[in-house]
Order: sequence, then C-alpha cells, then structure tokens
Amino acid sequence: MSTGNERLVVIGGDAAGMSAASQARRLRGPDELEIVAFERGHFTSYSACGIPYWVGGQVDERDDLVARSPAAHRERGIDLRMRTEVVEIDTAGRRVRARELDGGAESWTSYDKLVIATGARPIRPALPGIDAAGVHGVQTLDDGQALLDTLRVTKGRRAVVVGAGYIGVEMAEALINRGYEVTVVNRGSQPMSTLDPDMGRLVHEAMTGMGITMVDDAEVTKVLTGDDGRVRAVATQDAEYPADVVVLGIGVRPETTLAKAAGLPLGDHGGLLTDLAMRVRGHDDIWAGGDCVEVLDLVSGRERHIALGTHANKHGQIIGSNVGGGYATFPGVVGTAVSKVCDLEIARTGLREKDARRAGLQYVTVSIESTSRAGYYPGAALMTVKMLAERRTGKLLGVQIVGREGAGKRVDVAAVALTAGMTVEQMTALDLGYAPPFSPVWDPVLVAARKAVAAVRAG
Amino acid sequence: MSTGNERLVVIGGDAAGMSAASQARRLRGPDELEIVAFERGHFTSYSACGIPYWVGGQVDERDDLVARSPAAHRERGIDLRMRTEVVEIDTAGRRVRARELDGGAESWTSYDKLVIATGARPIRPALPGIDAAGVHGVQTLDDGQALLDTLRVTKGRRAVVVGAGYIGVEMAEALINRGYEVTVVNRGSQPMSTLDPDMGRLVHEAMTGMGITMVDDAEVTKVLTGDDGRVRAVATQDAEYPADVVVLGIGVRPETTLAKAAGLPLGDHGGLLTDLAMRVRGHDDIWAGGDCVEVLDLVSGRERHIALGTHANKHGQIIGSNVGGGYATFPGVVGTAVSKVCDLEIARTGLREKDARRAGLQYVTVSIESTSRAGYYPGAALMTVKMLAERRTGKLLGVQIVGREGAGKRVDVAAVALTAGMTVEQMTALDLGYAPPFSPVWDPVLVAARKAVAAVRAG
Repeated sequence: MSTGNERLVVIGGDAAGMSAASQARRLRGPDELEIVAFERGHFTSYSACGIPYWVGGQVDERDDLVARSPAAHRERGIDLRMRTEVVEIDTAGRRVRARELDGGAESWTSYDKLVIATGARPIRPALPGIDAAGVHGVQTLDDGQALLDTLRVTKGRRAVVVGAGYIGVEMAEALINRGYEVTVVNRGSQPMSTLDPDMGRLVHEAMTGMGITMVDDAEVTKVLTGDDGRVRAVATQDAEYPADVVVLGIGVRPETTLAKAAGLPLGDHGGLLTDLAMRVRGHDDIWAGGDCVEVLDLVSGRERHIALGTHANKHGQIIGSNVGGGYATFPGVVGTAVSKVCDLEIARTGLREKDARRAGLQYVTVSIESTSRAGYYPGAALMTVKMLAERRTGKLLGVQIVGREGAGKRVDVAAVALTAGMTVEQMTALDLGYAPPFSPVWDPVLVAARKAVAAVRAG
Repeated sequence: MSTGNERLVVIGGDAAGMSAASQARRLRGPDELEIVAFERGHFTSYSACGIPYWVGGQVDERDDLVARSPAAHRERGIDLRMRTEVVEIDTAGRRVRARELDGGAESWTSYDKLVIATGARPIRPALPGIDAAGVHGVQTLDDGQALLDTLRVTKGRRAVVVGAGYIGVEMAEALINRGYEVTVVNRGSQPMSTLDPDMGRLVHEAMTGMGITMVDDAEVTKVLTGDDGRVRAVATQDAEYPADVVVLGIGVRPETTLAKAAGLPLGDHGGLLTDLAMRVRGHDDIWAGGDCVEVLDLVSGRERHIALGTHANKHGQIIGSNVGGGYATFPGVVGTAVSKVCDLEIARTGLREKDARRAGLQYVTVSIESTSRAGYYPGAALMTVKMLAERRTGKLLGVQIVGREGAGKRVDVAAVALTAGMTVEQMTALDLGYAPPFSPVWDPVLVAARKAVAAVRAG
C-alpha cells in the first residue's frame, strides 16, 4: 500500500501500539514512513479499564469503549492486520513472523523500526476447574463479552470474585450493580494490597458495609463444577463459596514471551527494559511501551511494572514522537492510582511503608480524617489521608486516601508534589483551591502535611 | 486573668487573628504568655466564605459557620474582648487603645507582641440610595443575617446583584436557590474578571443559561427607592433594573485604617507589608495576616491582595508559631481560586494574560475542551481548560478552568506545578490518577499541557 522509504512495524493494536502508530503518522506521512501494525484480537485502541463499567451496566455498548476502530486507523494510512499474531521477532534479520489466526498462514515482515506493545496477560492459576464454564477473566473486550453472556444466561445470583486489587474491587461493584450477591476471596490480609494494611482495612470495612462478603487470607484451591460442567463453587483451604459465576481479578504480568525469545532485556518483574526515550535497552531500532514494559519509579529509584492505560497512552505518544523524528521522553512514574467500589474512592501515590523499607528509607507516617467539602456544606464526605515522609529530610514519600465522593482525585496534588521532590513542610504552604463546596479551609492533603511536619520534627 | 511574663495582643477575632492566638497558646501556656484579643463584632472564627450558602439555604444555621465560639476561645485561656474595637495603635508605647462598642468606655492595653488581623472591608460606592433598606453587603455574619431578614419579609421576587466576581456569582446562586429572578449588573465586559475575557465569556453564557440576566459593561449610578424608603430599582447609565432586594458584591479592600494611622508600611493595594514570617516590615514586635495584608505572588514576583479564608488560616498558623517561639514562613501564593454558580465550576491559578504582560512576560496560550470522566462514563461533564506558558522556556504561567462537576479542583494540579516551577513539557509526564469514573485517559490538565508544548515549540 505504501512505497515508504522506511517501515515501522507495531506489535499490538491497543493503547501503546496504536498511539505510537498514530503519533508517528502525524509526524511522517505515508510517503515517508510505512506503518504495519499487528493485532491478534478483534479490536484496536479500546479502554480495558472501562470493562468493569460495561459489565456493571454504566456503559451501554462495547463500542463505547473503543476509542478508534481498525477502519479508522486504516483511513489514517496504517496497514493494520487484525487477528494476526506475531509469533517471532528476528532482531538480527530485522523482521517479524506473523500468523493469521483465521487460516494459519504465516509470513515474515521486515522492519526498519519496531514497536513492541504486547501488553499484559492476566494471572490465571493452574487450579482444578479453572477452565469451567462460568469462570471469567476480564482483560479484553472479548473477555467482557463472554462474562456478560454468562450473566445473561445464569439463573443464580451468587458471584465470587477472586482477588481484591483494582480489578477485583471494580468487578465486585459491577456484579453488585447487576444484582448479584458478591463474595470477594482474597489472598492478602486486606483488600487492595497496593495500600498499606491499615488503609486496606478501611476498604474491607466499607465493602462489608455494602453487603459484599469479604474473605481475606484465603487461597483458592479449586473451582468446583456441577453435573452440567459449570462452576458451582470456589473452594479455599478452609471453606467453600457457592458461585454461579466466578470472576478472576488476580492481576496481570507483562506479556513478554516474544521479547524473551528474541533475547531482549527483561527486568525483575518480567517487563521489557527501556531507556528514557522508551527504546529497548541495547537496541537502537526497537521501542517498547504500555503494559509489557517496566517503568522507573521516581520515588524509590527502582523499576516497577504498572499496567495502566494512562501510562500506555503516554508511552505510545512518546514512542511515536521518537520514531517519527521528534523527541520526547518518559521520565518515570510516582505510582499514582485511583479506583472506586460503589461510592468508596481509593487512591494512592508514591511508596507504601513496605516499599519505603525496601528502598532503604526511614520514614514517619501520619493519618488524618477530614472532609471533601467544608464540614457545614451539604455532601461533605469523610476521607482518611495517610502520608509518609522521609525521616529527617521531611521529603514526601507517599499518600494514600480512602473516602467517599471527592476523595480520590485529591491524590493528584501529592503526585505532583512527589514529582517535584517537595517536603511535607513545603506542601503545607501549597495554594490549593478553596471554597466551601470544594474543600474545608485546610484541604485534607494539607491537614495531613501539617501533621507530617510535626511527626518529622519529633522523629 | 494571667500573670504572664509576656502579653500578646491580637486585633481581630476571625480566621487569621484567632488562628494566631490558638497556635500561640498551643506552644506557650497561660503562665508564659498572656493573650488578649479584641473583636468588634459578635462572632469569632467564622467562615465568611460560607455566607452565600447560608443565605442560599444549603447551610441551615448561622452557628454552622462558626468554627469556634468566644466561649471556646476563652476556655483555652484567651482573654477575648468581644464588641470591643481597637481605635489606635501606639507603636512607640507598645499599646493599643480599645473602645467598648456597648457603652463607649475606652482603655489602653500594652503589648509585648501585636498581631494585626483587621481583615477587609467591602467596597461600598457612595451612590445615591446605597443605604436604602433592602440593599445589603455580605461580608460578615451580621450582614448575612440582615439579608436573610430582608428576604423573609420581602414580597417581590426580583433581586439585583451588583458585581460579578466570586461574591457576586455565589450570591446569584444563593438568590436563585431562594426562588428569586436574578439580575447581575457588572462593570466589566464579562463576569469573573479574575479570568481572561474568553473564559469569562463561558461563565456569562452558562449563567444566562441558568436564567440569570447578565448585564455587563454597566456602571450602577444610583439606587432608586419607593415611597416606603425601600429599594425599588437599580439604575445604570443606560437602564433601570427593578429590585426588591440588592446585594453588593463588588469586592473588598484591606482594612488598614488603624495600621496606616500608626505609620505601618502599606503596599500598592493598601495592604500591610510583611516579611516571610508574617512580621510587619521594620517592626520586630508586630505581625499581620489575613485579609489586611498583601502577599507575594510567586509567579509574577509582585505583591497582591487576596482576601481568602484559606490564606488567613495559614497566616494565623504561621504567626502563632512565630510569636509562640516556633518557626514558620509563608512563602507566597500562586493565586489559586475556585468557585461555583449552581452546577458551573470556575477555577484559576497563576497569571491571566494581562498579569503576564504586566509582569513583562511573553507567553503562549492554549484552550482545550475535555471531560471530567472518561467520555463513555456516565456523568462525564465538559470543561474548558486554558493554559498560559512562557514563550521559549515553556514555564507554566497560569491555568483557568470553566466546566461542570469535577472541573474546579483540577486546578490544584496546576497550582502545585506552578509552585514547583514546572514547564508544560514536564507537566505532560505527570502521573495523575486515572480510572474511567475519575478522568479521561489523558487528564484535561495534561491535554492542555500537551497542546501548550506544541504552542511553545511553534512560538
């Protein structure tokens, strides 16, 4: 289709891959750069983060989650090959081998520049019964559709969610919204292991208050099936939980099978390692981004794996700029995340206590309760803010927030302060927006900072 | 009541003054420090910012706005003298002369340390009829009560608000909530002169859409009264607007009559000038804070006057720490403000275009439209974000946001970035909280930053 001087090959047609392709196309027209993208699924550029809300019924249509269809990408001059899986990267020969999933035909495509955006794969423990009908992951749109199909035909109303991280708690909400009795079975001592246990406890209590049965410290040992071959219960070491549907939300790992086979550098978490321009280390013509890479945590100075659409989009944008002849870098993350279960908002940024210890940092912690609006203003909702600051220096290390409406996005203030390397004392002077419908006269984040200043002085 | 070695005298019993007194008391007990505070009104430590919501009916009781009563302050060992006005400061003699408003008795009180927290006074133009029954300011709780009393007895349903800044638009909402037909008469070409005109235009349009009659470019020339002596209309150069009640929301000026008479240093805006510890310049034993001082604008490097409860509370805290033997400073502001009219949220931080020009800065501006949540998520509300960045350096200079639910507090991210001196390019990498119920995959502030990066490169 193109007589481009140069060919860019993209592996993976979701956020990182197609953002990279689109940005490269913006900078260089089809006469300058041919772009070939491979996607093994049925969809491109969709919001996996939106799947719980589609399953829960807040989003009506699957297509609402699709930011850009294959046709739209093709109109922009991207040679997009759907249902085609790359099965080998030959870095020496600068080519990839791809298989058409419908038919099985294979062929090699050469590249001048390669973008690896193979995403993440859900953790799926090899338990007896795990493949029974009625057991669902929720990683892809296809997964979401399969789960919705199950919900439509299932008569029972008992759901078990395995895992209590972001996906687990969001799926608990989705199933509540669909009228299910929900049990969340969780290996940790509290839900949301991305929070410290004391903050996770608040999530446990709130979810219990919503009528969700929270089973912590529980390892799933098998999935029990009925005579029809469908799931009927989930067994742990201690008990059995009846289930008409089971959702797995245990987490994901970088999908780097191809990269590993090609000898590309992987980190401790199994993700690809890149430089600041998102180029795979040691490979001048290969970039990688999205859920398949590790990113630098700016607070701990260590690599982490974080599967999050907002990072994948940024990576794609940066890669596209660089392969298109521009210049952009991804300096790293501070580990910000926000989520909700029904009306409970959960947010975090920076280091947990155990992250700080692992990084060799000594710290003080404080927790405060405050409200989202002035206490006298209607709708003022309680929130708890926990703050970690480095001992002696008072440098902000992390913030966790659990509360109701208006709590979650307050974490952004801490995310920017972390990025800027502020101390908690500097934070107390921050000029944040104040009016009674928006905040108490001391914003909750500032209340926490004030208390942290005192703790740093005492510690 | 105390045999303190040292006496602290506080002039003004609201946010700055009583925060200072309380913080000083926390650090030094009554045996070490005697604290005498004078307040000419009936209330202490109340939220003037909450008055529009009390008038509008969202807040039930006047006392809901009082954070700490005179009795509560006295319990903490503060010798609080209500309805007593300080009428002279004798800096050479280290004493103040106070008059009891009920009775008129006067006496001198000596001080070792003095805190001036005399607040601001509303601008009240000397127009014919301005003192007619039915014309109200809304600066104090007494003002709010008087306005509510008028609303209770007034039969007509036509209200005119003079002024379209924060107080004006909040009072417009309050009167709408009370069932009035509201006309806002405004001297400027747009409401909210704290925004650039293009953003003010969005406020104009939204308020018009709420059924509020917006009269811009209009100077009030007189208040017309009926045979009963009550207001019946407001006249401008061009027209008359029938009014059963008139609310003045024109703005405030620092109340520094006493300070000026005492020869203390005032700035271009009439506010007291202090050092970073909030000590009045050139006076080792006098501190000042709250609405009566000027503050350093960290973006322009110039002094400004900003009457805002959140600053007053910080000032008080800092002054109390310093007079109590601790140490704290107020580095300055970036000019963050947030407000709302019904469901319209209005926020700003940093410099407007005219501020940038006045500061000698060349700049680029961009405006973008985005949504508060992922576009497919229910309740995703439109917002416009305008961003100013310095030409060449790309340093963030200011952000203005006008939108619906979820728009206003996003300005905090920009406020922290301004404080940290970030460029718009650095902002594009900010790790802000993302999940579909909270944000599009690119937060609106980041969308604006990306566009600003392009503008800086082009400019």
